Parts: sequence; C-alpha cells; structure tokens
Amino acid sequence: MNSDIKIYGDIKLYAGSGNAPLANKIADYLGQKLSGREIIEFPNENLLVKLHDSARGQDVYVIQSTSRPVHKNIMELLIMLQTLRLDSAGRITAVIPYLTYARSDKKDQPRVPITARLIADMIEVSGADRYMTLDLHAGQIQGFFSIPGDVLTAFHIITEHVGNRLPEMKDPVVVSADLGFAKKGRNFANDLNLPLALIEKRRAKRGDKTEALNLVGDVDGRDVILVDDEIDTAGSVSQAVNLLKKRGCKNITLTCVHPVFSYPAIERLESLPLKEVICTDTIPLSEEVCQRLKGKLTVLSIAPLLGEVILRAHEGRSVGEMFNE
Amino acid sequence: MNSDIKIYGDIKLYAGSGNAPLANKIADYLGQKLSGREIIEFPNENLLVKLHDSARGQDVYVIQSTSRPVHKNIMELLIMLQTLRLDSAGRITAVIPYLTYARSDKKDQPRVPITARLIADMIEVSGADRYMTLDLHAGQIQGFFSIPGDVLTAFHIITEHVGNRLPEMKDPVVVSADLGFAKKGRNFANDLNLPLALIEKRRAKRGDKTEALNLVGDVDGRDVILVDDEIDTAGSVSQAVNLLKKRGCKNITLTCVHPVFSYPAIERLESLPLKEVICTDTIPLSEEVCQRLKGKLTVLSIAPLLGEVILRAHEGRSVGEMFNE
Amino acid sequence: MNSDIKIYGDIKLYAGSGNAPLANKIADYLGQKLSGREIIEFPNENLLVKLHDSARGQDVYVIQSTSRPVHKNIMELLIMLQTLRLDSAGRITAVIPYLTYARSDKKDQPRVPITARLIADMIEVSGADRYMTLDLHAGQIQGFFSIPGDVLTAFHIITEHVGNRLPEMKDPVVVSADLGFAKKGRNFANDLNLPLALIEKRRAKRGDKTEALNLVGDVDGRDVILVDDEIDTAGSVSQAVNLLKKRGCKNITLTCVHPVFSYPAIERLESLPLKEVICTDTIPLSEEVCQRLKGKLTVLSIAPLLGEVILRAHEGRSVGEMFNE
Amino acid sequence: MNSDIKIYGDIKLYAGSGNAPLANKIADYLGQKLSGREIIEFPNENLLVKLHDSARGQDVYVIQSTSRPVHKNIMELLIMLQTLRLDSAGRITAVIPYLTYARSDKKDQPRVPITARLIADMIEVSGADRYMTLDLHAGQIQGFFSIPGDVLTAFHIITEHVGNRLPEMKDPVVVSADLGFAKKGRNFANDLNLPLALIEKRRAKRGDKTEALNLVGDVDGRDVILVDDEIDTAGSVSQAVNLLKKRGCKNITLTCVHPVFSYPAIERLESLPLKEVICTDTIPLSEEVCQRLKGKLTVLSIAPLLGEVILRAHEGRSVGEMFNE
Amino acid sequence: MNSDIKIYGDIKLYAGSGNAPLANKIADYLGQKLSGREIIEFPNENLLVKLHDSARGQDVYVIQSTSRPVHKNIMELLIMLQTLRLDSAGRITAVIPYLTYARSDKKDQPRVPITARLIADMIEVSGADRYMTLDLHAGQIQGFFSIPGDVLTAFHIITEHVGNRLPEMKDPVVVSADLGFAKKGRNFANDLNLPLALIEKRRAKRGDKTEALNLVGDVDGRDVILVDDEIDTAGSVSQAVNLLKKRGCKNITLTCVHPVFSYPAIERLESLPLKEVICTDTIPLSEEVCQRLKGKLTVLSIAPLLGEVILRAHEGRSVGEMFNE
Amino acid sequence: MNSDIKIYGDIKLYAGSGNAPLANKIADYLGQKLSGREIIEFPNENLLVKLHDSARGQDVYVIQSTSRPVHKNIMELLIMLQTLRLDSAGRITAVIPYLTYARSDKKDQPRVPITARLIADMIEVSGADRYMTLDLHAGQIQGFFSIPGDVLTAFHIITEHVGNRLPEMKDPVVVSADLGFAKKGRNFANDLNLPLALIEKRRAKRGDKTEALNLVGDVDGRDVILVDDEIDTAGSVSQAVNLLKKRGCKNITLTCVHPVFSYPAIERLESLPLKEVICTDTIPLSEEVCQRLKGKLTVLSIAPLLGEVILRAHEGRSVGEMFNE
Repeated sequence: MNSDIKIYGDIKLYAGSGNAPLANKIADYLGQKLSGREIIEFPNENLLVKLHDSARGQDVYVIQSTSRPVHKNIMELLIMLQTLRLDSAGRITAVIPYLTYARSDKKDQPRVPITARLIADMIEVSGADRYMTLDLHAGQIQGFFSIPGDVLTAFHIITEHVGNRLPEMKDPVVVSADLGFAKKGRNFANDLNLPLALIEKRRAKRGDKTEALNLVGDVDGRDVILVDDEIDTAGSVSQAVNLLKKRGCKNITLTCVHPVFSYPAIERLESLPLKEVICTDTIPLSEEVCQRLKGKLTVLSIAPLLGEVILRAHEGRSVGEMFNE
Repeated sequence: MNSDIKIYGDIKLYAGSGNAPLANKIADYLGQKLSGREIIEFPNENLLVKLHDSARGQDVYVIQSTSRPVHKNIMELLIMLQTLRLDSAGRITAVIPYLTYARSDKKDQPRVPITARLIADMIEVSGADRYMTLDLHAGQIQGFFSIPGDVLTAFHIITEHVGNRLPEMKDPVVVSADLGFAKKGRNFANDLNLPLALIEKRRAKRGDKTEALNLVGDVDGRDVILVDDEIDTAGSVSQAVNLLKKRGCKNITLTCVHPVFSYPAIERLESLPLKEVICTDTIPLSEEVCQRLKGKLTVLSIAPLLGEVILRAHEGRSVGEMFNE
Repeated sequence: MNSDIKIYGDIKLYAGSGNAPLANKIADYLGQKLSGREIIEFPNENLLVKLHDSARGQDVYVIQSTSRPVHKNIMELLIMLQTLRLDSAGRITAVIPYLTYARSDKKDQPRVPITARLIADMIEVSGADRYMTLDLHAGQIQGFFSIPGDVLTAFHIITEHVGNRLPEMKDPVVVSADLGFAKKGRNFANDLNLPLALIEKRRAKRGDKTEALNLVGDVDGRDVILVDDEIDTAGSVSQAVNLLKKRGCKNITLTCVHPVFSYPAIERLESLPLKEVICTDTIPLSEEVCQRLKGKLTVLSIAPLLGEVILRAHEGRSVGEMFNE
Repeated sequence: MNSDIKIYGDIKLYAGSGNAPLANKIADYLGQKLSGREIIEFPNENLLVKLHDSARGQDVYVIQSTSRPVHKNIMELLIMLQTLRLDSAGRITAVIPYLTYARSDKKDQPRVPITARLIADMIEVSGADRYMTLDLHAGQIQGFFSIPGDVLTAFHIITEHVGNRLPEMKDPVVVSADLGFAKKGRNFANDLNLPLALIEKRRAKRGDKTEALNLVGDVDGRDVILVDDEIDTAGSVSQAVNLLKKRGCKNITLTCVHPVFSYPAIERLESLPLKEVICTDTIPLSEEVCQRLKGKLTVLSIAPLLGEVILRAHEGRSVGEMFNE
Repeated sequence: MNSDIKIYGDIKLYAGSGNAPLANKIADYLGQKLSGREIIEFPNENLLVKLHDSARGQDVYVIQSTSRPVHKNIMELLIMLQTLRLDSAGRITAVIPYLTYARSDKKDQPRVPITARLIADMIEVSGADRYMTLDLHAGQIQGFFSIPGDVLTAFHIITEHVGNRLPEMKDPVVVSADLGFAKKGRNFANDLNLPLALIEKRRAKRGDKTEALNLVGDVDGRDVILVDDEIDTAGSVSQAVNLLKKRGCKNITLTCVHPVFSYPAIERLESLPLKEVICTDTIPLSEEVCQRLKGKLTVLSIAPLLGEVILRAHEGRSVGEMFNE
Repeated sequence: MNSDIKIYGDIKLYAGSGNAPLANKIADYLGQKLSGREIIEFPNENLLVKLHDSARGQDVYVIQSTSRPVHKNIMELLIMLQTLRLDSAGRITAVIPYLTYARSDKKDQPRVPITARLIADMIEVSGADRYMTLDLHAGQIQGFFSIPGDVLTAFHIITEHVGNRLPEMKDPVVVSADLGFAKKGRNFANDLNLPLALIEKRRAKRGDKTEALNLVGDVDGRDVILVDDEIDTAGSVSQAVNLLKKRGCKNITLTCVHPVFSYPAIERLESLPLKEVICTDTIPLSEEVCQRLKGKLTVLSIAPLLGEVILRAHEGRSVGEMFNE
C-alpha cells in the first residue's frame, strides 16, 4: 500500500450545470469546495467556460451528467475538458454519472450510427485522460473508449435498499423489464436470493410497430421487483405493470439506476399501481417531480460512491477493493 | 484538364435539418434530389439518423448549418458523418455554410477554451474527409482542421449587389463595424473602389464593461455601407449606427454574410434607420423575420456558389479558377 | 443505382490458413481464384508471408478465421494485412468469419482486459481499411473498431433450415442457452413464430464456482430448439440438455453459428441425446469430427453470403438490401 | 494554493543556437545553468545533438528562437525535442520566443500552404508536450497546436516603456502600421489612453503589385507611436513614415516585439527619421546592428517574463495571475 | 542529481510466462516480489489475465520474453499491457529481453512484411509507455517505436567473460558468423583487442538456395571466438565451424546473446567440436538442454543489468552512466 | 493483369529545387511536363509555395532530393506536400532520390536522436500518402515510415556499368569501404562473381578519435572496385585508397550511389589515384565539379528507373516484376 504518493497535484472538482446537486454532495463527501467557473450562454446559444483560477498540474474531475438538455450538456462537458487541457491541467477525469446515447451502441440495422462510440471519441478528443461513469446500458461501451475509466455500478446500493424491504414482501420475485437486461436482472435476483422472471417483447413481424408482451416465468400471488437500468418514458414499464397485474402479481416495486423520466414518464408513474419507485441521483429530479411522486419515490444517492472512487483514483489506491474484488 | 475522371462514386447530397431551404436550392443547382434520411428525436432528446439507401463508395456531401438550435445541429451533423463513415461512404464532405463557435478562436484571456478548434476536432473524429464552409470569422480557422477544405467567401456576391446600388448613393464610404474586420473591410472597399472608415471600441480600462465607440475616418455627408461578417444581436450595429448618424452620415446600408439574428436583433434592425440590410442564406430566416424586415432585407443566395464548388470538388476540377485564381 | 463504378482495382482474395475450405468456396462463388501467397513458418516459429504477385491498387480481401491455433492465426492475419499495406494495396478488407476473443468484451470484474478491443486495435494498426465478420458475441464490438465494417449474421440461414424441420416437430419451443443470448433468442423465436424459454445460471454467491441451472419458461412435452451463438466445450449445452430433459422436453435440436468445439465438445456432443446439431462453416471442422458426429451434424455454408457481400462491397452496392433493409 | 507540489523532476533548461543570449538571461533569472549539450554540424550539413547528461524524468525546457538561419534553427529545435523524448524526459516544453512562418497562417489564395500549422505539427510530432511563445502574428495560431501552450505577450513591457516617454511627447497618437494589427493597436492605444490612427494599404486591383497607402485618422502636429508585431525588411515602415511625415506628424517612435530585421531593414532604420526604435530580445541582434542603430535602438528583455512563466509552469502555479487575470 | 524525486508510484514487476526464471532474478536484484497475476488459458486457447491487486498510478514493468511459444507469448504480453492500461497504471514499461521477429526488419524483396515494425505497433497500441530490450538484431529497430525505450547490450558481459578465458587461448581471433554482424563483430574484437575475420555466404545466383561459405581473413593455427547475436537452428554455425576447421583453426568458442536454439540446434551444438558455448538468459533454457550441453554451456545472467536499468528508469537516473557514457 | 484501371486522376509531377535536372529527366521519360509552381524565398528566409493550377484528385509526385542546402530542401519538400494535401490532391507520393539524415538511424550512444525517424514522421505529418527513395543507408529505415513506399536500388545500374569494365581489369576484387556495408558489398561482389575484401576501422579504445584501418582479405596485385552507398567528404575513401595501395593493389575504381561530395571531397577525389569514380544523379553535381573530375567521373542516371516506377505505381502495376521478383 502506498498511501503517501501524490502523483498529481491536488484534487480539483468542477461541475457542469448538468447535475449541480450531485456535484455538491460529492464535494461535501470529499470535504472540498467545487472550483469556481463561469458558464456563459451568449444570445447565439454559444457557451463560454471561464475557470476562476488555474488548474495547472492539478488532478481535475469534471462532474457532468448528460441528461436533459442533452446536447447542451454534452457540449458543456466537452468545452470544460478542452479548457482544462489548454490550461495544462495535470490529469483530467470526466465524471459522467449518466452517459446519454448509450442505447445507440451497435448497428442493429443497416445505415444507422453507433452514437455511443461517437460520444466516447468526442470525450477523448476534448482532452479527457480518464472517465468515470455508472451502469452503462451495455458494459461493452467501456471498449469504445481508448482511455482508461472506472465504470461503476449502483445496483448494490439498490439491492441493499430492496433487501431491507424484503421482510415485508410476499414471495417476492425479480422481473427483468427487458430481455437485454436479462443477465443483470439475474445478478439482481441472485444477490437477493430471489427467483427471476422476464418480460419478452415481440413484434408480429420484423419492422412491425405493434409489440406484444409475454411473461416468461411465474409471478402469480407474488410481490414483484421490476428492474431495469433506466426509465425513460415509462412506456415499457406501463405495459409490463399491466401484464404483471394480469398475471396475478401483488405489489410492484420498480427500480432503476437512471431516472431519465422523459415525458410522459411522470404521468405514468403517478397513475400506475406501484408501491415504490427506487432510483438514484445520477440525473437530477426537479422539485415538482419529487412532489408529484411523493410517498412513492425513493432516491438513493451515489455521491458517496463517486466521492470515494475519486479519492482512490487520486491517491492511486484500488477501487476494486471497495467491493472486495 | 481531366474532365472525365470519376474518382469516387456518384454525388450524394444529404441535408441536416439546420438549413433545409439552402440544401434544396443546392440540390436544384446540381439537378439532383437530396438523398433520403430520417432524423428521429426520441423523448429523451437523443437523435437517431437512418439513411434510406446505401452510400457505399459514393461521394457524399452533408449540408448542415450550425445555427440555432446550435448544439442539436452540431450533433446532428456529427451523427450523420459517423453514420456515413460506418456505411462505408467513399468520401465524406461536411458542408457547413455557417460554422458556429467561430468567435471562440483563440485564448485572449487565460483559462478559456478555443471552441472552434474543438468543433474542428469533432468534425474530423466523426469521419469527415473534407469540409466546406463560408467566410469564417478568422481565416486562420482553416488551420484548425487537419483535413483539407474549401473555405469560400460570399463577399463578391455582396459587393456585386452593392456595386449595383452605388449609382444611387452619395459619396459612399465603407465602414468596418469592428477593428477585427479591418482588413476584410479594406478588401470590400478596395473591390468597390471606395474609401474606408473604421469603428473602434474602447473600454475605460481592461475588464471594464462599458465601451465607448470612436470613428476613425470621415463619414460626414456621405452614404455609409456598414460591413461585418455576421450580425448577432445587432448590439454593435446599433451603437455604430448611432455614432455614424451623430457624425453626420446620410443613408446607411448594412451588409453581412451570416444573419445570426439572435434576440433582439430583429427589434433593433426594425427600428434602426437602415436603408437596406443585405445578407445571405447561410442561415435560414423564418417567414416572420422576412415579414418584419420586409422592404429592408435583401437575402442573396449562396446556393449556386456551393453547388458549383461541390460539382468541381466531385469532378476533381479547380475551385480557384471560378475566381480567376 | 451506380452499377458501373469501379472505385478500386479488381477484387483480389487472399486466404490465411485459418479456414481454407471456406476461402475456396467464397472464391468459387465469385468465379475467382485465390491470389497466390506463401506462408512460411521458420524453425523459430516466426511466420513469413510472401505474395506471389503485386496487389498495388487492388481491392483486397483477406479471409482468415481466428479459430485454433488462435494466436498463430491472429498473427498470420495481421502480417498479411501489413504486407498488403506495404505493397500499396488500394483497399484492404479483413474478412474474419469467426472473431476470437469476442467474449472478452467488457470489464465485468476489476483488473481484467477487454481483449476484443485489443484485437480490433491490432487489426487496424496492421493496415485494414475495413473488416467483415459474422455474429459477434456482442453487437457492441462493432463500436470497438474505428474503421467501417460489415457485421453479418448467419441466423437467417439457420432459421430457414430449422423452419423446414418444423413440420416434423412437436410443439416446438426455442430455448436460449444463456441469458446473455436472450434477445437474440427472442429474435430467433420471433422469426419462427415460436415461444421462448430461457436457461438461467446461478451461483450460490459471487465468486462461487458451482452453478445451478434454472429453466425460465415451459418445455414439458415439447421439442426444443436450443440456440446459442457459439459452442465451445459444450459444457453449458450438456447441463442445459440434462435440465431440459428433466423438465420433460422431447427431441432437442442444437444450433449455433460458430462451432468452436474445444475439447471435450465432440465427446459431449456424441453422447448427448441430440436429434440434430446445426452450425455453419465459419470455423473449419476436421474430417474426423464430421465422421464422429455423422448423422447428427448439419453444416450450413456461409460462403454464398460472404461472397455476395464482398461483391457488393467491391461494387459499391448496398449490403442491407440483401436483407430487404 | 499548492506551492509544494513537484509534479516532474527538476527544471532543466536547454538552449538551441538560435538565441543564446536570451537563454542565458533566462537561466540567470532562474538561478540555473543551461544543461550541457553539443550541436555538431557535419560537413554534409546534418546536425547531431548530444546531451551531456540524462534528462530522464526531468521537466525540460528547450529555448530556441526560429529566426535566421530559419530552417537550420527549426531543425535544431525538432532534433533536440526528439532527443529529449527518446531520452525519456518527464515533460518537454518547446520555448520559442519568436515563431517563424507565423504569417503563413491561412489560405488567402488557392493552392498555398498554411505553414504555421505545419510547424505546429512538426513540433508536436517531435515530442513536445507543451510550448511557450510570444506575440504570435495571429492569436488563432494557438489553435493549430493540439498540445497546450502559454502564448505570452511583451506588449505590456513595451507600453510600460513608452508610458515613461509620454510626458516628453506632444499630443501623442498611436498608429497601427497594418490593418491586420488594428485590434492590437487599439489595445496598445487603450493601455496608454491615447487616440488611434491606422495605415491602410490598397492595391489598384487584385493581384496588382503596387500599393498605395492611406492614413485613416489624424496625426497632424502630433508625435506618433507607430506599432506592429514584427519588423521584417522595414519596407512598410518606410512607406508609413513617409506618409505620416507628409500628414504633418512630429517625432515618430517605432515599436515592435520581434526585430526580424531582414535586409535591408538596418539601412532603412538608419536613414528614417525615427526618434526611437523599441523592440525586445526575442531575436538576437548582432553587435554590428546595435552599433549602427546606436542612440535610436532600445531593446527590452523578455527574459524575466519567460523565466517567471517557466518557474510557474514547473511549479504548477497560475501564469494568468502574473497579469492579474 | 535528483536522487529523491519519485515521479511515479512504486515499482511493480509483472512477469509473463515467457521467462519466469529471469523475472524472478530481476525481482531478487530489486529486493521485490513479482506482483500477483493469473494467466488463464481457456479450452478455446483464449487467454485471460487477472491482476491480483491494483496497479493504479504505479510504475509498472512487464517482463516477457517473446521466445517459444512465440505467438502466445506475444499475445500474453499485449494483453497484460492493455490490462494494466485499463487499470490506470501510472507508467507501463514492456521489458522484452528477447524480441522475436527482429529479423523481419526490412523489405529485402518485394511483397514481404516488416513484421518487427508490426510488433512495435502492437506493443504501442496495447498501452506501453516505454520498452526495454537487449541486443536487437538491428539497432534501427529502435526507430520502429514511437515510444522511448532502453535498448541495452549484453556484449560487455560476454566480452568480460571471454576476456577471462583469453590467457588460456592461443593467438585468438574473433570471427563474425555473418556479414550483417560485421560491425558488431569488429566492436567485439576491438574490446578484446583481437584481430577480426569474417564468414561470407554466397549464392551462385540470386534466388539460388545453395550457399557457399568463404572466410575473409586468417584463422590458421589460432583459437577462434565465433560471435553472433543469436543462435537459431545452429545451421550457419555448423557450416562455419566446418569451414574454420578446414582453414586450420584450433579451439572454437561460440558466443551469442540470445539462445533461440530451435530444432535441431541442440543436436548440432552437442556434436560440433566446440570448446565452449556462451549465451545469456534472455531466453529460458530447459533443464534437458542444460544437461545435454553440460560442460560446454555457459549461461551469463542479464538479470542484474535489467534490474539496475529498471531501478534507474524508476528513479529518473541516467542509464548511460552505467556504461560511463 | 489490370492494365486499364485508373485509380487516381492523371499523373502530376512537381519538382522541388533540390534536383531540377533529375526531375526534368523523369518528366521526359514519362513524356510529361513538370507542373507549374513557384517557390518564393522572402527576405526573412521563409518559403512560399504556390501551385499554378489545381491538383484536386490527381496522382501527384513531388520530386525533391534532400541534399545541400539540406534544411531548406527538407522544408521545401514538406511545404509542397502540405500545399498539395490542402489542395485536395488525390494521392501524394514524396519522391526523394537521396534521403538525408539516413545515417542517424539508431541510438548507438545514449542521449542522441534518431533523426531519420524524425524525417519520416515529418514527411507523414505533412501529408504524403506514399514515398519513393533509393538505396537507404540502412534498409530498416523503411520501417520508420507508417506509409507504404518503394525503396529502390541503383546498384544494378552500377554493377552493369562495372561489368562492362571487367574485361579490362586485372584479377578484380570488390572492397567494401565500411563494415556496415559488408552485406551489400557481398551482394555487389556476388552479382559480378568477384571475391570480396573489407576495410575495417578500429579505435584504440572506445571514444578515441584516431582510427586505424585494417584490410581483411587480399588485394595484392589486383584491380580494386571500392564500393560504398554514399561518398561524403571522401575522408574514409582517402584512407582506404592509401591502405589499398600499401597492400599492393593496382587500379582503383570507386563507386557509390549518392555523390554527397561535401567539402573537401572534390579536392580529395581530384588528387587520389582513382581510375574511375562512378555515381548516380540522385544528387545534382555542379558544372564545376564535373569539370574538375572530368575524365574520372561517370554519372549514371536513375531517371529511367524512377520514371518507370512512377508509371507503374500510377497504373497499379507491379514494381517488383521490373527486377523479375
């Protein structure tokens, strides 16, 4: 163990405007202040970043979620990275709690992009030396980056929370909301020592828009923990809940890491018969959303997780050993 | 002369959503149809591009102005470029009539970005083999690209138009609206064989926000042609017009290439005593803007210019000889 | 349609020693001969590639499966690519029917490699301009490459074959052999309009070696089509077959694209109660293997598929339209 | 503030043969000796650089002006950079007080190079991690580099000197010698709180060689401070002085940062009616030149400026705060 | 001298499976343990590397000879390098005592590869920041790498050993076994102050397989020290020994750095009339080989040399001064 | 054979000022005119290249020897390459009959550069797609380039010429002027079916300046053909001739490919007892040199060789088959 090496200068934390509350919590965890910077938006929509003081030689972390407004937040991140590189920062880590465009991760039809790779390229060309993120839609996206990174997961935070709820549940079963999430759903079920069922979507034929949902596995008379990595419009969730109810399930707890909550997610979540909606703060939720989902919504913070990983990365200590790995 | 070589496949023109009218005019000039593509915006703001048919081996031109909505238009451009690269297009040229962020072209204070370089890097990393653009804020931005490009000018189109107006003008003088535009202002004056004056902005001290305007040169009793490369909020124009009037000028004609027209440009242009406002169609103007500036506004099209350059680039013929160079 | 363009020189096909029979079939499809080359192995194991004649300016395709001997086959491929680049070939496409190391596609634990990305980097640094491959373990591996590629699938060839068998089957059900294959298993079932069940592996706790298998879904009294992308040692298959039998299934048909068949796959496949084992020729099978699995084994050739795609890539025609996409 | 970090090894200063006096003054400022190296020129003009001792892990600064002999000095710089990289230096900064070819910074006509970009590329490919330079002809040249750099200005040194002269001057006015320098001329005037006039060059028509000079602004009866970034052959200066005299100006003080002084600059400066010629030591002046311009010439040293910036870069401290920025 | 700087974290040594005994000796020299790692070979021949603990920020050295099994050893090296890069190691040095494929270092005929360059590219793309190796077949191979490296020689270890033998030798003469080794043979002779002779191979005509050997120089009645950089199959050695004997030489001592010893080297070395065979431990020799050559074979260890160079590289001290350079 | 493909546009030949006579001869061979360009040298030594007409899409060859003035010629080459790249040339080949700095091809002592690699990097970064050169000092320099190239030899032209002289010679023997040239000397002797001797230089100890020459082999009573790749100051030649004469040789013929002829080569060649001095026109010789060496000097032209290779490269035909390879 070499707790005394100091490879780079001091930690400096910068926050984009994408997730200010999380950035502040991370700073609190580290007993630091966020470094001063201005982000000016001109009338022509162009952004200007100005750092309040020099980052020369420092070990810099730029915290920016790429949630709504997506393209402005991406650009803000890239401009901050370049500004820091041109200011001769010692090492620059892009901390992106929620990485957008992660669902565009392969060409599953001809003549479409792989935008997640493009995003990775853009982050690298802007000057990031490293990146940190959480629960990528597909773990393979790590391979889109040429720079090293820490891809973390918040699922142990969620399973710990759900674990505390288990004694109150009746014959609980984990249901994976999507076949692409089957393996992670199994891990979730495995960690809680619960059985697994899966929702399967079908199209009558290729290219057909109307989907039919099947349930593979059994939920009759059981409480359900419905799991996915992110909730976008909650459309699939909505269909899934209906199907589960039809198949005789009891209470439904919905969990995800990333509460994207695009319109009309809130309306749907309000009206669906959900006992609890569990997510994390990788994406900031407005006061209004919190009000509307009051009593249902549990937001678990990943700030201690990110704070600790930043500290270990800075000090050259293992991140894996946080998880006994 | 080798008029018969066919280095790449056929020309294929793709248009982003940034300047559809211009893209259509260019296609008309070339006697072509724009190639089919869909640009889908999902509820989470993510964009998906789908090409209707294969661009394999073709000589592709993606026409996209990066005007408002700036960041979405940039991203649209980049995604289209990557999609075409992954589809094995033969050669990809990014045609960007208006390149945003061009004013962020140097670090004129510490700890700021050079965003124009970042944009160039992003265009390259997305897969463009070449680029085309018009009247960059600074010609040096060409040097930000590693790929070759055609940086064109629309000033000859504007001077030709103004030249036709000259007989009606009284002792006309060209006034450069900004000292950074002094050299191009001189060229403008030189082409029309007119004298030059310059607007000079001063700050009481460095960092001071309030600016005072001086006029270097003489406009008393003369018609003025006020020139700049782009008009953003028309704030500087407004101040300049006031000063020019105070110095006794007669009619004022305002010219620029890029009508950025950020709020409250329209209000200002409406109310200012301008005889004519001349610009090009590098940026699309809404029907409403055209109505409000009716009688004042002249929009000159650059579509024939871009169309001809695309044709020559495709056929491996000189672009310079269009200008007797 | 531009059927007459000839972007590069003639097609030249080179074969590594990884899958000579397939290379010959592709050449036959194209009515071509494989281009002459020697691959010499010196006593110190070093390989030397010598091309018989010049590839200057030609449109070259190097066909090499990276199956056993894995590392020698990889190196052979890379050396051929570099030799062709140094010989000034016009365009070089690495045709890799089976891409090894594709299961090392993400860091699912700390301090492990992403070898599939390394392989992609090596292929690019050797000089490939494009690549072609089939049924990657994860589609996201496309995003590991910076060069464009054609990632094809042989599943339609398999489903067509299985489709012909359906009339003889009793209440057939598709079973995905692995949760990571769930989505592709669903597509398989969807194309044949059959129900889906899934095999789920569990470990008592993380890091535990012993796995328990569950079946999610129902197979009782049904014929099963057990599907996966590749069969390696057939260990999982073996467990799966036992479980399926315990759950009352009738005949089992096993399908995969890539017959890796590592020891002791053959022994297992011989002894398991399988009605048919269906695979393709992305990896060459020895005469002995074919004998031992005689009566059970069906090998479907992908040569016409690869041949047609090479032809279209050469002529700058759409590959997607082969699949009505 | 982290005054105690030591990111790299010790400072090591190496000097090319381009500006030995300046390199020595910088070393003096830092209380250091220049590191030993030999630069051998063989009879075939090839250069060989040999370092006297190891630079492994050190924080190295290579000081080299790229003034006459231009191409040899460039090559010397590049070879020194590569030698240090191959010797595993920790961080390498190219300190280039005068960067040649900076006027070739854009394609202002077809089929010409952007040599300043080429120079930037060459510096990067040789192994520089950072660069430092002064008063680039155009600030945008910063954007030609992918590596970070410190682009400094010596104008505050000149304005401070001129400021001391102001009490003796009569109604002084700043005259920008070139329209391309208009903005920096305005800053110069702004800092001294003086009015601005501009010299404007015209050609009868495009491509015409003969130029006519205009003066925009008023100098009658005033002392003039004629400013530019560099003086090359002093041809433009010569014309400007004649025009200014014709327009009735009194004493003329000429200032520039870079005394390039190509033939026949000295002859011209000797004979022109100049009260003072002010420049810096970014380019070394021969004893003979100093003699011939004795009584007229003031050379202000930038060594303390560069020395201080090197120190701050080494210690990871802000450079901007030297200028209260 | 800056003996106290600590640029990176602690030294960490990792060993591939290519030369475990040497790696252990180097670790002993440095008073360290080899860092834990697993290298797992799956039934499909794919390798998986797992590091036992984190290398974050450390100064890492991967020791791997690329001798037999050549391609597996190369791949092991590359995977280890990538694993360490992805684990955010501070600096990664590939220590390759014997670099294979070094004889493929130029195109001496058309349409062949330069595989040594390919190997260099692969090492770089995998993530090495630096490399170390010994006695490259051609010194120019250093120029194939873009990263810095330490290319060491073991010849001083061999000449020191041979120097101790000289008093027992009769009129010793150094014979270079190959014309390509002529210059290094001269250095060898020079260091021992002995005369030089050379073996010259001829082919009757270009492309002819049969070679005739000449001896240039005189060996009659003398003891011979036959030198080369590596011994592969010992075929050339065999011919050379026969010729030397025919020319009347007495005892023959054979020396090389790299004992590649491909089949049938051992048989030949056993049977040839050699007084001593001297080599180093850049390549591990099996117990069996050592037994069969017992009494003849002297293996000199390079572990202290590599250990000391690693130490100096880590501490930022000169390597050259080990050799008074 | 595909004699009809036309991969790029027409051939365009550009000549730098380094070897105009050779460029003209190559143009003659190809029945072409050199393309128009201006190379302007400004008073500040900066060069400006202007192409007379567009090279868009063409297959361009830039012919430039990097002989004296070395650094200006290098820079001219690089600027021409960049100009052509920015002008969107189709393919750019740097044709460098004599590549300077080729002797700086390895670090044979610590803390020196590998300038030949730097030159290769500079050529690539400037925009060359390919290169052509002759008789590199070491064939390995090919591996310094990442782009493909044609490295040709003129030795067959020289041996053919010498072969014609053989009947008049007495017991001729080939003498390699340098041990580093031993292998190529052997090839030379082999082609002429002559014996070989070698000149061996020794230093009393490492670092010692005074060298002693030995002759390995026999020349007594024989005519000598003294061979090397280039003649620089003719210092080694001078020593060699003296030694050869002392060892009783008769007439001496001196051959080389590259007549660098640095001072005082001409004086030495004039005064030495040489029957014939044979070289090629890779480097232009002044009229004066030709006069002073009249009667001794034979210059063989490589223009037909380069012309033919350019033609074949353009047409995508094999170069190797020119040499029956």
